Amino acid sequence: MAFGPAAMGYDRAITIFSPDGSLYQVDYAFEAVKKGWTAIGIKSKSGVVIASEKRKAQSLLDVDSIEKIFLIDDHVGCSFAGLASDGRVLIDYARNIALQHRLVYDEPVSIDYLTKSVADVKQMYTQHGGVRPFGVALVIAGIDKTTPKLYMTEPSGQYMPYYAVAIGQGYYTATEFLEKNYKEDLSMEDTILLALRTLSATLKPNEKLTPNTVEIGYASVQTGIFLKMTSEDKNMYLQKL
Amino acid sequence: MAFGPAAMGYDRAITIFSPDGSLYQVDYAFEAVKKGWTAIGIKSKSGVVIASEKRKAQSLLDVDSIEKIFLIDDHVGCSFAGLASDGRVLIDYARNIALQHRLVYDEPVSIDYLTKSVADVKQMYTQHGGVRPFGVALVIAGIDKTTPKLYMTEPSGQYMPYYAVAIGQGYYTATEFLEKNYKEDLSMEDTILLALRTLSATLKPNEKLTPNTVEIGYASVQTGIFLKMTSEDKNMYLQKL
Amino acid sequence: MAFGPAAMGYDRAITIFSPDGSLYQVDYAFEAVKKGWTAIGIKSKSGVVIASEKRKAQSLLDVDSIEKIFLIDDHVGCSFAGLASDGRVLIDYARNIALQHRLVYDEPVSIDYLTKSVADVKQMYTQHGGVRPFGVALVIAGIDKTTPKLYMTEPSGQYMPYYAVAIGQGYYTATEFLEKNYKEDLSMEDTILLALRTLSATLKPNEKLTPNTVEIGYASVQTGIFLKMTSEDKNMYLQKL
Amino acid sequence: MAFGPAAMGYDRAITIFSPDGSLYQVDYAFEAVKKGWTAIGIKSKSGVVIASEKRKAQSLLDVDSIEKIFLIDDHVGCSFAGLASDGRVLIDYARNIALQHRLVYDEPVSIDYLTKSVADVKQMYTQHGGVRPFGVALVIAGIDKTTPKLYMTEPSGQYMPYYAVAIGQGYYTATEFLEKNYKEDLSMEDTILLALRTLSATLKPNEKLTPNTVEIGYASVQTGIFLKMTSEDKNMYLQKL
Amino acid sequence: MAFGPAAMGYDRAITIFSPDGSLYQVDYAFEAVKKGWTAIGIKSKSGVVIASEKRKAQSLLDVDSIEKIFLIDDHVGCSFAGLASDGRVLIDYARNIALQHRLVYDEPVSIDYLTKSVADVKQMYTQHGGVRPFGVALVIAGIDKTTPKLYMTEPSGQYMPYYAVAIGQGYYTATEFLEKNYKEDLSMEDTILLALRTLSATLKPNEKLTPNTVEIGYASVQTGIFLKMTSEDKNMYLQKL
Amino acid sequence: MAFGPAAMGYDRAITIFSPDGSLYQVDYAFEAVKKGWTAIGIKSKSGVVIASEKRKAQSLLDVDSIEKIFLIDDHVGCSFAGLASDGRVLIDYARNIALQHRLVYDEPVSIDYLTKSVADVKQMYTQHGGVRPFGVALVIAGIDKTTPKLYMTEPSGQYMPYYAVAIGQGYYTATEFLEKNYKEDLSMEDTILLALRTLSATLKPNEKLTPNTVEIGYASVQTGIFLKMTSEDKNMYLQKL
Amino acid sequence: MAFGPAAMGYDRAITIFSPDGSLYQVDYAFEAVKKGWTAIGIKSKSGVVIASEKRKAQSLLDVDSIEKIFLIDDHVGCSFAGLASDGRVLIDYARNIALQHRLVYDEPVSIDYLTKSVADVKQMYTQHGGVRPFGVALVIAGIDKTTPKLYMTEPSGQYMPYYAVAIGQGYYTATEFLEKNYKEDLSMEDTILLALRTLSATLKPNEKLTPNTVEIGYASVQTGIFLKMTSEDKNMYLQKL
Repeated sequence: MAFGPAAMGYDRAITIFSPDGSLYQVDYAFEAVKKGWTAIGIKSKSGVVIASEKRKAQSLLDVDSIEKIFLIDDHVGCSFAGLASDGRVLIDYARNIALQHRLVYDEPVSIDYLTKSVADVKQMYTQHGGVRPFGVALVIAGIDKTTPKLYMTEPSGQYMPYYAVAIGQGYYTATEFLEKNYKEDLSMEDTILLALRTLSATLKPNEKLTPNTVEIGYASVQTGIFLKMTSEDKNMYLQKL
Repeated sequence: MAFGPAAMGYDRAITIFSPDGSLYQVDYAFEAVKKGWTAIGIKSKSGVVIASEKRKAQSLLDVDSIEKIFLIDDHVGCSFAGLASDGRVLIDYARNIALQHRLVYDEPVSIDYLTKSVADVKQMYTQHGGVRPFGVALVIAGIDKTTPKLYMTEPSGQYMPYYAVAIGQGYYTATEFLEKNYKEDLSMEDTILLALRTLSATLKPNEKLTPNTVEIGYASVQTGIFLKMTSEDKNMYLQKL
Repeated sequence: MAFGPAAMGYDRAITIFSPDGSLYQVDYAFEAVKKGWTAIGIKSKSGVVIASEKRKAQSLLDVDSIEKIFLIDDHVGCSFAGLASDGRVLIDYARNIALQHRLVYDEPVSIDYLTKSVADVKQMYTQHGGVRPFGVALVIAGIDKTTPKLYMTEPSGQYMPYYAVAIGQGYYTATEFLEKNYKEDLSMEDTILLALRTLSATLKPNEKLTPNTVEIGYASVQTGIFLKMTSEDKNMYLQKL
Repeated sequence: MAFGPAAMGYDRAITIFSPDGSLYQVDYAFEAVKKGWTAIGIKSKSGVVIASEKRKAQSLLDVDSIEKIFLIDDHVGCSFAGLASDGRVLIDYARNIALQHRLVYDEPVSIDYLTKSVADVKQMYTQHGGVRPFGVALVIAGIDKTTPKLYMTEPSGQYMPYYAVAIGQGYYTATEFLEKNYKEDLSMEDTILLALRTLSATLKPNEKLTPNTVEIGYASVQTGIFLKMTSEDKNMYLQKL
Repeated sequence: MAFGPAAMGYDRAITIFSPDGSLYQVDYAFEAVKKGWTAIGIKSKSGVVIASEKRKAQSLLDVDSIEKIFLIDDHVGCSFAGLASDGRVLIDYARNIALQHRLVYDEPVSIDYLTKSVADVKQMYTQHGGVRPFGVALVIAGIDKTTPKLYMTEPSGQYMPYYAVAIGQGYYTATEFLEKNYKEDLSMEDTILLALRTLSATLKPNEKLTPNTVEIGYASVQTGIFLKMTSEDKNMYLQKL
Repeated sequence: MAFGPAAMGYDRAITIFSPDGSLYQVDYAFEAVKKGWTAIGIKSKSGVVIASEKRKAQSLLDVDSIEKIFLIDDHVGCSFAGLASDGRVLIDYARNIALQHRLVYDEPVSIDYLTKSVADVKQMYTQHGGVRPFGVALVIAGIDKTTPKLYMTEPSGQYMPYYAVAIGQGYYTATEFLEKNYKEDLSMEDTILLALRTLSATLKPNEKLTPNTVEIGYASVQTGIFLKMTSEDKNMYLQKL
Repeated sequence: MAFGPAAMGYDRAITIFSPDGSLYQVDYAFEAVKKGWTAIGIKSKSGVVIASEKRKAQSLLDVDSIEKIFLIDDHVGCSFAGLASDGRVLIDYARNIALQHRLVYDEPVSIDYLTKSVADVKQMYTQHGGVRPFGVALVIAGIDKTTPKLYMTEPSGQYMPYYAVAIGQGYYTATEFLEKNYKEDLSMEDTILLALRTLSATLKPNEKLTPNTVEIGYASVQTGIFLKMTSEDKNMYLQKL
């Protein structure tokens, strides 16, 4: 019987360090993220975009009714990859944070604070017993006053600011594509097109993005409002690819 | 001794990720679903239908008194496959949600919200220690104002909108049948007949649907009321198959 | 070392699914039921009967003082097979439910609701940690207004309506006998006799029912009252076998 | 390594069913009972008797000061076999039940209810986590108005009425002896003598009962009072053996 | 690998019965008692004595400042063998019981009740999870009005009345010595001398009791007061050995 | 199979000593620290400096927006190495302590007390069950009135005062460099330059510090204010290396 | 595979007795003590002294700022060996006890009571689940009115009075040295010198005590005040060695 170190027990119990300082449960939770549908976040001078694919795993799935991009508040949206039910719980939590902030301070929550609040919940689920980590990564994007913000939070509770980031099945290809093609001074339109081109790059040769299989959310520094794109607009952009 | 990865311990404790990011306990709970009696949900332009078989496992079972389709509120019904006692607990919960909504807001609960509430309870039972996941899938169908809605919730707490969906023993055959025969623009009558034909397709050659061994619930966009079909009506439809 | 799947650990911890979706602890609890004294429940057009054997395991046991059929309320009675101490706890619970119902609503509890309440407690003991399932099955029988009702609740918390049902050591033979001889339109007297004949069929060749070794409870649709039969009446019926 | 099934883990954790529906921990607790000093309970038409041996394990033990028969209330007494410290806890509990009953209802507690209360505590300790079963069996005897009552409660929480019962080291020999010699219509004196003869039958050839090594408690239907016998009376009865 | 039954797991977890009805953890706790310094308790017609050795394990230990005999109340004292820190906790508890009794009832606590209270705490620590048994045995001695009382409580929570009892390293030799030399009608002085002779008998050939290495507590039926002996008095008695 | 002692189970459970008195979980948590980005703390007569590298692990990471040096209060700052999400939790805690101190006492918190408070939380997470230790080391530096203070807290909860200290990937090289080059009587400027030279020494041959990849915080005894250095100032200092 | 008894599992779980009555976790915690820096406590007619070494493990450690001797109250001080973070927690606790005593009784806490309070916390951490024992031994010394007091508390919660005691790495050599050289009637100065000579005896041939590497605390019976020695005074004493 030849096992790698993972098999020696460090990876079975929650909240336990392995001899090399890893938390295997948290690493495994990230594996759940890598199985999710691909989502792309991009931040440019002009604004932020989140694009997320929707795969028709079963032909009778009502894909149109599935949401993959979620409005958290007027100025901020979010997508996720990983366990859908875990993602839902965290998005509910984020919306609550945003709502409470408006009620208490009468102004929109800062995206830094919002992201940190969600990440703190994730951290807590990696350090205390009796629970498992959240099997989900979130891309959070929006405009703080006139500053575009883009964060990705990991199952560990770590979050980082990015210029562009990809999560889910296509993250490897998408990241490579973004590293080659990203520029910070893109127009809003070009930022959206870059997101769609990145998503296209992750598809198999015979696959193609359609208004039904992609969701797009964006916010420009001018408006500061995070919007989900209509089917017509999606169509228009897809024809420009 | 040659074990697959499942045998190495990741599948025994609750709420633990395996190295590939799976939650085995949740997967196993789905196996309980696959052993249940078949239930079919269909959503068309005209309305929604749930059809569920009742198997006379023992000849002295009083099958007539067994319920497989449950009214949650005037406009929404539900069926399940899996552990009957788990299903009962969740249906009680759903009825409570619907009732509370009427009391607080004086209007029917939206089917999205209702489904999400039930699914949130399921998610919680996959992430916290000291409990097991619910071994049951629910088909929830109804009319939100004039929009037909059809959801299926999994033991993981994930739920998806469907045009048509099947759970239980016959889910594989039923799904195949539905993928071939489903159309969105069916009349209410044809929607009901499609559900019954799908259920028939899952039977063994010598088996036949009778008013005693099938339960049917439906709601048309005209009335917006979810009704359980009487024995006479069931008979009428069964003769049209 | 060759183990069946049961030996691989799925059967040791409470509230855990095995890879095929079973809850072994619940299955094992049912084994305790199969070791109990046989109890028979029958529902006919005329009423309901429960008959239960009492075995004189030790000659000095005061069998006459042992109860096997329990009054829950005026209109409903119950017997059990399995761990006697577990049964006692559930019967106390059922009596409480019935009593509270009378106090709050000033009318007898419906047998559906009563059975569901007991079964909900059983379900809870299969899903939460720190407890084991109840090792007992209950036969609950009575008259709701003028409708005869007969339920059997399993250790899983599942309950089903039956025309006739048997639990305990003799359940297999008794069920076979009932499947052959049951008819729905029996007089009250014939319903009682069928129950006794079924119980007789489960005895060893040299064994015989006596007023001391059988308990009988019944309720006719006319009176709607569940009664335990006196020794003289038992004698009378036993002579008609 | 050849183990019987007991060695495979079913017998180690509390409150878990084995595949054949047994609760091993409860069975093992009964083993503790079998190591205790022998106690005999007998119920006849004339009254009830409990006789219990006291073994002088160490010569310096002040056996006279050790109690083996305990008054619970005026009309009911009790002895036990098994873990002495567990027995003490349950006897305290029984006395409390009896006292509370007098305070609330201003009448003596029925022996049925008293026994059931003690047995319910025992059952609870077999079904909930974090505790072990009570390693003790109790013989409870007394007069309810004018009816003699005799019960034995097991570690499982099961209790049964008996005409005569033995627990502890000598239970096997004593039960055999009682099965041969018991009659229901004994005078009070003969009931007491039967208890002492039974206890004598369990001794080794060179052992003999003395007033110091036996405790006797009894209650006749005439008085309805449970009394512990004085040393002189014990002497008188022992000379009649 | 050849293990006795102890190695098969029954002895590792708290509050679990082994197949033969033993609680190994409680047995092992008694081993800690057998390692403690020897303490002797004697009860005679004239009063009670406790004598306890103090071993100068390290030459720089300030043995004079170590207490081995503890006053619980005016009329009762106590010594222990086993884990010193466990003993301390129980002695604090006993003192509290005695104090509370005086406050509430304005009279000294009976030694029976006091001993039972301490033993009940010990029993609780053998039946509930999350704690280990107390690794200490207590000798409790005193005068109840004019009756001498002597008890020994075991780690199990069992307690017994004794004429004379020894615990700790020398218990075997001391018990043998006491069995040969004990008489009930000793004067107070002779009772004290017997205790010291017994303690001497447990020493190695080259060891000798000195006022520094023995503590003596006693209570005569005349005074009813438990006193710790002064160094001068100890010297006087030791010269009479 | 040849394991070192670590493999025998002492290293898997939290809060358990190994036979040589180690707490392996705490040691493993320190391994997580050794994987973090290098951070340097230096205390001289003139003031304190913290310098921390930021590595552009991915080219699209918005390194400018990542903070590695955190202001706790006007007079004290902090950096960490290890699990970023754990560090965040402790920094939040430290800020709270500082804030509360100002509110209650109307003066800045002493750095000793601040460090001790953070370290006490860490200690608690090594002694109680159900949690894992914090996988992070903190460098805390500031001016208490006019006294420079520098502490490093380990995952164990231990903290020590240092003249100079390094944590993270480069700690070995950095410590060697500091041991050779540290002097206590450096000017503020030289203290800052020493920190940067130390950080440079940990880089690979082809790597170079840039204003983007290093963060610097410092406080001089004159001002007593902890400041994060601007990009221009960083540039100025880096050119002096 | 040849294991000693320690390897059979008794040493892994908290609060469990091994077959020979040991608590291995407590023994292992003592191993942590043996790794700590050496501390010496001496009590003479003239007063008490604690001397403790401070080792410059790393050249950049600010050893001067490290405290090894702690004032608990005016009349009592303390040092420890073992896990520094555990020691800190207990010293905080001791200070609280002393403070509370002054507040409530308006007089200094007795050193007996103070030591017992700390030891009781330690005992609790050896008997209850979910925590590990404290890996630290404390030397507590002071003057109760005019009586010098010296205690050492072990991880088990046991504490003993000593004339002289050593803990930490050098305890074996120091104890040997003390056993040879200790006398009770030393002047305060000679008591301090004995402590320093003992500490010197534990050093390696090339090591030497300096004011920087030793801390000294002392209290004379005249003043009754526990003082930490200044650097000048330390120097003076070290020159007399």
